[in-house]
Amino acid sequence: MPKIKFLPHDKQVEVDDGDILIRAALEAGVHINASCGGEGLCGKCRVIVESGSVQGGISEKLSGEDREKGYRLACQSRVIEDIAVRIPIESEIDASVLNLQSSPRRTARIQEMNLEELKEQGLFNPPVEKKYLELPPPTAQDNLADATRLVSYLKLKHDEHRLVVDLPVIRKLPPILRQEDFRITAILARPVHAGRKTRIINVQAGDTTDRNFAIAVDVGTTTIYGQLVNLIDGSAVAQYGDFNGQISYGEDVISRMIYAEKPGGLERLQEVVVESINKVIRKLLRRSKIDVDEINNITLAGNTTMTQLLLKVPPGFIRRSPYVPSSTLYPPVKAADLGFELGDHVDALVYPAVSSYVGGDIVAGVMGSGIYRTDELTLFMDIGTNAEIVIGNRDWLACAACSAGPAFEGGGIKFGMRAAKGAVEDFSIDPFTNEPMLLTIGNVRPKGICGSGLITMVANMFEAGVIDNKGKFNRDLATSRIRKTDGVVEYVLAYREETQIDRDLVLTEIDIENLIRAKGAIYSGCITLLAEVGMGIDDLQRIILAGGFGSYVDLEKAITIGLLPEIDPDRVTFVGNGSLMGAKMSALTNRIRQDVVEVTRKMTNFELSETASFMDNYVAALFLPHTDMRHFPRVKARLEMRRAALQ
Amino acid sequence: MPKIKFLPHDKQVEVDDGDILIRAALEAGVHINASCGGEGLCGKCRVIVESGSVQGGISEKLSGEDREKGYRLACQSRVIEDIAVRIPIESEIDASVLNLQSSPRRTARIQEMNLEELKEQGLFNPPVEKKYLELPPPTAQDNLADATRLVSYLKLKHDEHRLVVDLPVIRKLPPILRQEDFRITAILARPVHAGRKTRIINVQAGDTTDRNFAIAVDVGTTTIYGQLVNLIDGSAVAQYGDFNGQISYGEDVISRMIYAEKPGGLERLQEVVVESINKVIRKLLRRSKIDVDEINNITLAGNTTMTQLLLKVPPGFIRRSPYVPSSTLYPPVKAADLGFELGDHVDALVYPAVSSYVGGDIVAGVMGSGIYRTDELTLFMDIGTNAEIVIGNRDWLACAACSAGPAFEGGGIKFGMRAAKGAVEDFSIDPFTNEPMLLTIGNVRPKGICGSGLITMVANMFEAGVIDNKGKFNRDLATSRIRKTDGVVEYVLAYREETQIDRDLVLTEIDIENLIRAKGAIYSGCITLLAEVGMGIDDLQRIILAGGFGSYVDLEKAITIGLLPEIDPDRVTFVGNGSLMGAKMSALTNRIRQDVVEVTRKMTNFELSETASFMDNYVAALFLPHTDMRHFPRVKARLEMRRAALQ
Repeated sequence: MPKIKFLPHDKQVEVDDGDILIRAALEAGVHINASCGGEGLCGKCRVIVESGSVQGGISEKLSGEDREKGYRLACQSRVIEDIAVRIPIESEIDASVLNLQSSPRRTARIQEMNLEELKEQGLFNPPVEKKYLELPPPTAQDNLADATRLVSYLKLKHDEHRLVVDLPVIRKLPPILRQEDFRITAILARPVHAGRKTRIINVQAGDTTDRNFAIAVDVGTTTIYGQLVNLIDGSAVAQYGDFNGQISYGEDVISRMIYAEKPGGLERLQEVVVESINKVIRKLLRRSKIDVDEINNITLAGNTTMTQLLLKVPPGFIRRSPYVPSSTLYPPVKAADLGFELGDHVDALVYPAVSSYVGGDIVAGVMGSGIYRTDELTLFMDIGTNAEIVIGNRDWLACAACSAGPAFEGGGIKFGMRAAKGAVEDFSIDPFTNEPMLLTIGNVRPKGICGSGLITMVANMFEAGVIDNKGKFNRDLATSRIRKTDGVVEYVLAYREETQIDRDLVLTEIDIENLIRAKGAIYSGCITLLAEVGMGIDDLQRIILAGGFGSYVDLEKAITIGLLPEIDPDRVTFVGNGSLMGAKMSALTNRIRQDVVEVTRKMTNFELSETASFMDNYVAALFLPHTDMRHFPRVKARLEMRRAALQ
Repeated sequence: MPKIKFLPHDKQVEVDDGDILIRAALEAGVHINASCGGEGLCGKCRVIVESGSVQGGISEKLSGEDREKGYRLACQSRVIEDIAVRIPIESEIDASVLNLQSSPRRTARIQEMNLEELKEQGLFNPPVEKKYLELPPPTAQDNLADATRLVSYLKLKHDEHRLVVDLPVIRKLPPILRQEDFRITAILARPVHAGRKTRIINVQAGDTTDRNFAIAVDVGTTTIYGQLVNLIDGSAVAQYGDFNGQISYGEDVISRMIYAEKPGGLERLQEVVVESINKVIRKLLRRSKIDVDEINNITLAGNTTMTQLLLKVPPGFIRRSPYVPSSTLYPPVKAADLGFELGDHVDALVYPAVSSYVGGDIVAGVMGSGIYRTDELTLFMDIGTNAEIVIGNRDWLACAACSAGPAFEGGGIKFGMRAAKGAVEDFSIDPFTNEPMLLTIGNVRPKGICGSGLITMVANMFEAGVIDNKGKFNRDLATSRIRKTDGVVEYVLAYREETQIDRDLVLTEIDIENLIRAKGAIYSGCITLLAEVGMGIDDLQRIILAGGFGSYVDLEKAITIGLLPEIDPDRVTFVGNGSLMGAKMSALTNRIRQDVVEVTRKMTNFELSETASFMDNYVAALFLPHTDMRHFPRVKARLEMRRAALQ
């Protein structure tokens, strides 16, 4: 891995071969002015390569003389060997500045499902298993029914007891048995509880025990993610995501529920989500070259509304006070009965929910991340339009949903957008010139701001003193970037000609207010939930983040704005799509189905809107990072140091 | 009940008010010449009413003088008061003749399901029960999911545990709960084994616990019989029978199996039988004015082929050596999935089979008749084209099927027909004149001979010496009714002009041979089965007859030809449609479903064709009643007495 030494900071970092130089700088906390998102248009990100050389970086924005001197555009340069890079004079004020550089980007460590651990603990036992048999053909003296013969020999040869044979198996057994001379593979579906009946759900001619697959699905409001899982070794053979076709019937769960109450609406939404899942299944099968008949199980997790829509259960009372779902536990159901394009032997196992707003996706995350098996007091968060919070450990679990609003998904933000190409995702600001450094997804000219970019932006502006702790811009700063338009104070991130949108790209005080409200709701949710179980924020030992948002967010920035409690970033892990992880886990570990009922029972749900202290905690959290700085000692120290340096 | 005294026999019987005189005579064993079946055309059944008077009986066959003298046609006379009737001189030979009259008709006592006994034994517990609840509506402080609320209160108020809620209930629960202000009736499906899960299969608004119904069905090869059963009191609300529409695809199970192997054949036969059952269900609902939504269960019994066709299980190997069914146990299946026009909450419970030719209809008969709970060594027989035989008691059960051929259903008999209008069903013969007395179903001119008529005919001719013990007509008798046509010796039952068929109606020696083969196969089956378990015919303590045939057959006649072992007719009972009785019983008694698996396991199936002694026993049984008369002491005594009287 090539090394970069940034001068004059004398900060050294390792990067991957071929990394873009400006991105490496930003992640190291080194500011370089830049406002075109990394497309090479603004020409501001000039740096001098003093030793070694980069690939690219030459641009018409640089004069011949500049090129001779070693100037390169950082956003156009790829690091391919050890280099020393000097940040030009514009940022070089004095030594104290070096301390004012942003802290390097810290994202959460990725916590993957530990298959080996599962195997060691004897928990790798998929709900669907295969057994191979060579049966003696019937004779006049031994003319047991085909099904009886199969059951008898499963008992004799594989010590399998309490077997029942499903009707479709009874239907296909006679020809299949005789196809390869009474050599046959039986597919067994395990009961949730040991001692209950094991079902024979399918039979195949010959020995097919080396191939056994399942589909795991996260049924999201916006997206469907599927994984094709190999039940022999636990590996994910393929993964694919696609939009949930229900989007055409409303962006969020509330609008979907309203649509479901129209005549035929529920049926339509059910068909649409099933078709979206079928699309994902088809893609997974094609990619992995696996035949649909080889899929023996499908596990699904989704929020309560998505789950009820999938199962064609009217969701109307979820959105009406007192917010009652129809059920929290769902029985296994034939995949084909729901409309999935899978064999008629396949059961669909659907994750149970806790309440109307803490759904199966969260329960799946709890199961997949292992919080229900840990000793440490853990905070599990899945942040989207709704933030779901689970606090607890192996002994107890408390959960709540709080309506964060759509700020983290770009909603309610003037130039907010989803995390897609052109979204500002990284940002730093020069504390003296107040010039921005912004990088976009895809390194193209900016067209908006995504959730993680917004957090980084506000955190850095706050630390730089551009924004005060109430979220207002410092009107006294000597920069034309802060201005008032139509009565609203804003900061110009990029001027019209540097953008894709033919307008100045700005961050407004209203945007900041919306972000503060969203983060305040979530923080208040955590505090309130902890208080309800008699604990405080300092008792937290670990944070697990789930959801797309959690993978990108800069942890230090999230703590700086008071979205996350102040905790050692090393104690924060990211499980990615917790819902999908949990769905996969239940395809690999039958034990999950046994545990999950107990876990959901254990998960005490708090309705924050019914908890008196929530509003007080919320109001107290409407500051950066919080009114009570005692819980943010590191942020406080950094602010004080910065203030001292600047005075 | 009016009394009849027959003179000169001085035999007195009681009859129902309005009974036909000639039928009363025949059932009492009094011979009156008659050959038009009871339609009043032959004018032979003249009797003299000496005291009292009858209704009708006047005919143009009687002269004015005859009428004056009190002559009446017995077949046209209804008994409405005590009468004395003299049989005219034609039959009045001498006193010894009186002893030669046939023994009175003895049919089996009808054994009905004893509901009171079931109730006393605590066995009246239908698999589907209702529970009423008044739930507190949810509030902000108590916003349990609807299904959780239902389950919690079923536990609290009705001590119901281990409940699971079916998906259709989860779907309809929210609106149903709110329809009558959280007053609701839950419909519970009990598990087979105590301690397993009870399923909530349906919910209804308000209190509907006073109405709970089931459908019980006998799926016969020829006919479908259904009963609508009230699960509150155990009564049969309505019963209806109709043809199995599969008849158009073949008369017997073999031809159905052959059709099922054609492309689309199995699917077609499945649809057809389901439609036939749906017709019966519709009729039952209309007759009883019960709504389809009030039906909560359907129980079905049929032979192995009918069951596999109903469940769309290919039956091909049933008819091929070594005669292997696909399964003997069938899991519960959704009635709607089979195509039944019943609610989507209704489970179809299908009786298990023992083997390819001892099917669920026989198992149902065993369960319904209680043979599996008795101490007495019992012979259970269901006679049709196949005769199924079960021997045993509470400790053990052995069973076998033997192919009797279709003689008992009129097949292979020159003028054989099903028991329908115009079939000769009763018969006696004058031992001196060899003139017949025959009565038909519906008292119309004869057109054929049904199974029970055939038995009675052959038995009476045998006792009268018209037929010898090899089934040959006595060529020396002075009667023109015995003649040879196209090389075959036959007896003219009715001449052309007395019939509906424009031909002489005859019984041929080939007919008799076929009957002897059929009864020989059945008797040999019993003997062989008994021998296999180390017992003999004299150990039998009780006989239970099932099936349409059993209700009509004259027990003494059946013993006389050697179809049934000689046993006190009081120890023979008739359960009617055993299959339907068993189906009904499993709708009333959940215990049946638990017992039946053990019972089928206990029923040792013998393949008679694989048992060496069967053929020897069969050959020995090809005599009237048998080569070994030691087992027929009563028949032997009667024959000897008759021989003495006639000499």
